[in-house]
Amino acid sequence: MPRKPKKGKITGKIRIIPLGGLGEIGKNMTVVEYDNDMVVIDCGLGFPEDDMPGIDLVIQDITYLEANKDRLRGVLLTHGHEDHIGAVPYLLRTINVPIYGTPLTLGIIRNKLEEHVLPWTPKLNVVNAGDTVKLGSISAEFIHVNHSIADACAIALHTPLGVLLHTGDFKLDTSPIDGEMMDIMRLGELGREGVLMLMCESTNAERPGYTPSEKKVGASLESIFASHPKKRIIIATFSSNVHRVQQIIDTSAHHGRKVAITGRSMLNIVSAATELGYMTIPSGVLVDINEIKRYKPGELTIITTGSQGEPMSALYRMAFSDHMQVSLDSNDLVVLSASAIPGNEKLVGRIINELSKNAVEVLHDAVVEVHVSGHACQEEIKLMMALTKPRYLMPIHGESRHLCANRDLAHYMGIDSKNIFISEIGKILEIDADGARWNGTVPAGKILVDGYGVGDVGNIVLRDRRHLAQDGLIVVVATVDTDERMLLSGPDIVSRGFVYVREAEELMEEAKNIAYDAITDILYDSDPVDRVQLKRRVKDELTKFLYSKTKRKPMILPVIMNI
Amino acid sequence: MPRKPKKGKITGKIRIIPLGGLGEIGKNMTVVEYDNDMVVIDCGLGFPEDDMPGIDLVIQDITYLEANKDRLRGVLLTHGHEDHIGAVPYLLRTINVPIYGTPLTLGIIRNKLEEHVLPWTPKLNVVNAGDTVKLGSISAEFIHVNHSIADACAIALHTPLGVLLHTGDFKLDTSPIDGEMMDIMRLGELGREGVLMLMCESTNAERPGYTPSEKKVGASLESIFASHPKKRIIIATFSSNVHRVQQIIDTSAHHGRKVAITGRSMLNIVSAATELGYMTIPSGVLVDINEIKRYKPGELTIITTGSQGEPMSALYRMAFSDHMQVSLDSNDLVVLSASAIPGNEKLVGRIINELSKNAVEVLHDAVVEVHVSGHACQEEIKLMMALTKPRYLMPIHGESRHLCANRDLAHYMGIDSKNIFISEIGKILEIDADGARWNGTVPAGKILVDGYGVGDVGNIVLRDRRHLAQDGLIVVVATVDTDERMLLSGPDIVSRGFVYVREAEELMEEAKNIAYDAITDILYDSDPVDRVQLKRRVKDELTKFLYSKTKRKPMILPVIMNI
Repeated sequence: MPRKPKKGKITGKIRIIPLGGLGEIGKNMTVVEYDNDMVVIDCGLGFPEDDMPGIDLVIQDITYLEANKDRLRGVLLTHGHEDHIGAVPYLLRTINVPIYGTPLTLGIIRNKLEEHVLPWTPKLNVVNAGDTVKLGSISAEFIHVNHSIADACAIALHTPLGVLLHTGDFKLDTSPIDGEMMDIMRLGELGREGVLMLMCESTNAERPGYTPSEKKVGASLESIFASHPKKRIIIATFSSNVHRVQQIIDTSAHHGRKVAITGRSMLNIVSAATELGYMTIPSGVLVDINEIKRYKPGELTIITTGSQGEPMSALYRMAFSDHMQVSLDSNDLVVLSASAIPGNEKLVGRIINELSKNAVEVLHDAVVEVHVSGHACQEEIKLMMALTKPRYLMPIHGESRHLCANRDLAHYMGIDSKNIFISEIGKILEIDADGARWNGTVPAGKILVDGYGVGDVGNIVLRDRRHLAQDGLIVVVATVDTDERMLLSGPDIVSRGFVYVREAEELMEEAKNIAYDAITDILYDSDPVDRVQLKRRVKDELTKFLYSKTKRKPMILPVIMNI
Repeated sequence: MPRKPKKGKITGKIRIIPLGGLGEIGKNMTVVEYDNDMVVIDCGLGFPEDDMPGIDLVIQDITYLEANKDRLRGVLLTHGHEDHIGAVPYLLRTINVPIYGTPLTLGIIRNKLEEHVLPWTPKLNVVNAGDTVKLGSISAEFIHVNHSIADACAIALHTPLGVLLHTGDFKLDTSPIDGEMMDIMRLGELGREGVLMLMCESTNAERPGYTPSEKKVGASLESIFASHPKKRIIIATFSSNVHRVQQIIDTSAHHGRKVAITGRSMLNIVSAATELGYMTIPSGVLVDINEIKRYKPGELTIITTGSQGEPMSALYRMAFSDHMQVSLDSNDLVVLSASAIPGNEKLVGRIINELSKNAVEVLHDAVVEVHVSGHACQEEIKLMMALTKPRYLMPIHGESRHLCANRDLAHYMGIDSKNIFISEIGKILEIDADGARWNGTVPAGKILVDGYGVGDVGNIVLRDRRHLAQDGLIVVVATVDTDERMLLSGPDIVSRGFVYVREAEELMEEAKNIAYDAITDILYDSDPVDRVQLKRRVKDELTKFLYSKTKRKPMILPVIMNI
C-alpha cells in the first residue's frame, strides 16, 4: 500500500506538531507547517482530571503559536464539539488569526464568543464541505464526514510535497439523518492520487466492527414511544447532536406529541440549528416549557440537557425536585439517549438512582439501543486506511491505548511499522522529499483555567489543594517579640477540614501545648531568634504529634508575628 | 406463587432492619430479630465517594446494635469479601459478639484482625455449608452458593414464624472450579416447605441473561497462553478470587511455566487458601519473585494485585517502572483478569495507557473474556425466586436502580406488589402472623474512617475539605489592641492553593490593603470594638474583592489577635 512521495526539485519541509489530543482525551489541536506557512487544525478544550480540584477547563500551551503568529495563516475547524472548538476564544485573546469552519461550527462559536471580551473582531470565515481554502503554500480542502454533530469535515491539506489528510472525528453512516454519507468518493480519489500522511482519529480504535447508524436510535425511539402511549417522555441527550434532537422531534410529531425544550445549551443549539437550516420543526409541535401543564402525559415530550448527570443541568434538577416547570413521578419515562463519558458514570448513576427511588421509569443505553457512538470503530478505520492508502500514518485523538490500537490496525492493513508515527504533544515530525523523521520538540502542555485565571494555577497550587482536601489545615498563630524574647500572644490554633473541633477539644489543647513548647524553646534557647527556624519547629513538632494521634497529616501553617 | 405463613398461636414478631448495603454499594449489614433474639448478617465496609476527600473507609452506624447488644446472639458472614466482612474489626471494638463463617471467610478475618487491637479475644466460630447454628429462637442454616470467592453461602434463618432466606452474593455456576454447584436442591426444599421472606441480592439485576461460568475464563486463559508462548505473562486479578488464581496456576503448569506471585494481599490469600485446602499448587511450580531472572519470558507467569489500577499496587508499580523485581517491556503480556469497579475506570485506564506507551501488550475484559462476574444476572435471580417461592421479597445489596430492577423481576415472576418491600438503611420491616408492614426506624448512616479516627470526620469537616480543594485558602493575620484601638502588626496574608503568589504579587498587595482598610475601619469607628464583627468585615470584603478579580471563592480565615 505504501506509495512514493512526489519526486522532483521540492526542497520544502512539512512539520506536523500536535499541541493537544494525543495521549489524552480532548483539547485537540494539530499544527501543520510547510516552510513558512503554518495552519492549525482544531482548537478544543479539555476537562480537568480528578487530581485537578477547582479547575474549570484545560487548554493547550500555545507558546509556540504565539512565537510564530506571523506565520500562522489560519485555524481550520473540523466540527463544532467543545473538544475541537472550545479553546478558540482563548486563542483569539492573543492571536487575531482567521478561523475557518462550516456554518454550524461557526454558529456555535459565535454563541460562545458572546461570553468573552476580545481585543478585536474575530475573523470567522464560513466554508462548506467541498470548499478549498488557500493559506499560503497550503490548500485546505474540507471533506464531508459523518459524526454525532452535523456539518463535520475531514480536512485534506494539499502541500507541494503531497496531501496530508486529517480525519477530524468521523464515522461511516450509510443512512445518516441529513441524507449525506461520508464522502468516501473524494477520499478514494485522494487515495488514488496519493496521500502522503493520514492523521486518523483513534477514539474507538479498540472496538471491533462498525458503529451503528444514527438511524438505529430513531427505530428504538419509535418502539419506545409506541409502547409508552400514556407516559410523558423526557429525553436527555447531547445538545450538539442536532440529528438526535431532530429524530426525537420527528418521533414525537409522528405520535401526536408536543415537544418542550429545557436546558440552556439545548435551547441555544435548537435555535441556532433551526435558523441555519440544520433542523426542521413541524409547525405547532414546539410548546413553551411554561405551558406544559396544559397537556396530558401522553401528549408531551420534553427534550433536556443533563445526559451526563451534570449537577445543575435541567435533568439533574428534575430528578432532585428542583426544576421550575417539571416534576417527575410514575407518569414519566426518562430516556438517557447518550452514554456516560468515562469519568461520568457515577454522576449518571446518581440520577438513575434518584429517578428509580421516585418510581420514574428510566431507559438508558445499557438496556435499549438509545445511543450510538459518533466515532469510527475498527472496520471504519480500516476502511479509511484502505481508501486513502497513506504512505505515512499518525494516529491522533486518543489516549496511548487508543493510539496504539490504531497503530495495530494499520499494521494489519499492511502499513510498514517505520511509516507509522505515534506522536506526543509538542513533538515535531518532519517530512521532506527524503522521508519522515522526528526532529525535536516545541513547548506543549496543559494550561489550567480556573475562573478568570488562565495559567495562574499550576502544580504547586494543585498540590496544596490536594493536600488541603486530604486532611485539612491547622493554622498556628502567635505574636512574639524576638528582641525581648517574649511570647506576647497565642499560640492560637485554628483548624478547618481536619477534625470536628468541638469533639476534639483535648486533642486541640494538647496541640496548643506542643506549639507553645516549640515556640518558647526557640525563643529562649536560640540566639539570635530565627523566625524561619521557629516556624519549622512548630510545623515539625505538630506534624509528628498529630500523625501519632490521628494518622493524618493536615497542612500546618505557622504564622508568627513579630512586634 | 405467594403462600400463606404458618398459622397458629404464634404471637412473636420478626423485624428486619438493613443497616447497610441498600441504596448503596458496599457496607452490607442486615439485622434480623425474632422477639428478644437478634442476629446480624454480614458486616462489610464501604468505600468513600468522590465527595469524601481524605476518607479511607465507610462503615455502618451501629448505635442500634450497641444499644441492644444484650440481645445480639451472633454475626453471620456469607463470604469473605471486604464489603461483607471488612467492618468486623470495628464492630468487635465495642461488642464482643460471636462471629460465624466458613473456614476461608474466617481465615481472611483472622488475617485482618492482626492489624487491630481489640479489648477481648474475638469468638470466631467455623461453620460449613450445610451446618445450622442455633441462636436463641433463630436457627441459621448455611447453604452453599457460587460466587467469585470460595466458601460463599446463603443463610436461611429459621424462625417460629417461618424461614427468612438471605442470598448473600451469589451466582449459579454449573461448572464451578471447586466442583460444587450452588445447592439449588436445598433452596428448592426450602421453597417447598415455604419461605416467608427472600432477601435477594440485586447487583446484576439490570443485566439480562445468565452470568457465565468461571470456567469460561479458564478457556480464555488457555488460548491466551497458547498464542503467546514466547512472552512473559503477567496477570492481575482480585486476590480473593482463589478459583481464578487456581486457574491461572493450572494453565501455567499446563504450559510448563513457573508462577511467581507479587502484591501483599495476593501473597496473603494464596498462603491462607493453600493452607486451608482451597487451592492446590502443583509442586515445583511456584518460584520466588526474587528468582524470576532465572527464567526466560516464555517460562514464567506472574500473578499480581492491581487489577483496579490502585496506585501503589504491584501492577501499578510495574507499569510506572517502580517495582523492585519486575520491569516490563515488549516481551511482556499483561492480562487484566477483572473488570473495573464503577469509579475505577480511569485508574485502570491510566495503567493500560502507560503499558501501551511502553510497548507492553495488554488484554482486558473489553477485548477478551478474561473475567466473569460473581453476581446473578436476571435469569439467575428469577431462578432463585422460582425455587424459593417466597411470600415476601426484599431486594438487598444495590443502589436504588438495582433494587428497583430486582423488584421488576419479582413482578414478572408473579410476586404481588404489596408483598415486595424496597427498604432503606435504618427502616424496620415487621412481620407477624398477620402480615408484614413498615414500622419505624432506627439510627443508621455512614460513619467515616480517616486514619485512626472513626466518626470524627463529619459533614462540616468534609464541607471544609471540599471548599479548600476547590479554591484554596487565604489566612489574614493581624495583631490589634482593642482597648487602644491600635493595629499593632499586620495584616499579613498567607495563601495556599489559591494562586501562585509569586506571579500574583499585585493581587495579594491589593488584598492586604483591603484587609487593612476593613480592620482599621472597625478599630476606629465601632464602639466597643467587636472582634467577631472585625473578622466578618475582613472576610466579607476580601471575598467580594477576590471574586471580582478571579471569579474564585477561597476560604478566608481571619485570625485577629488581641494584646
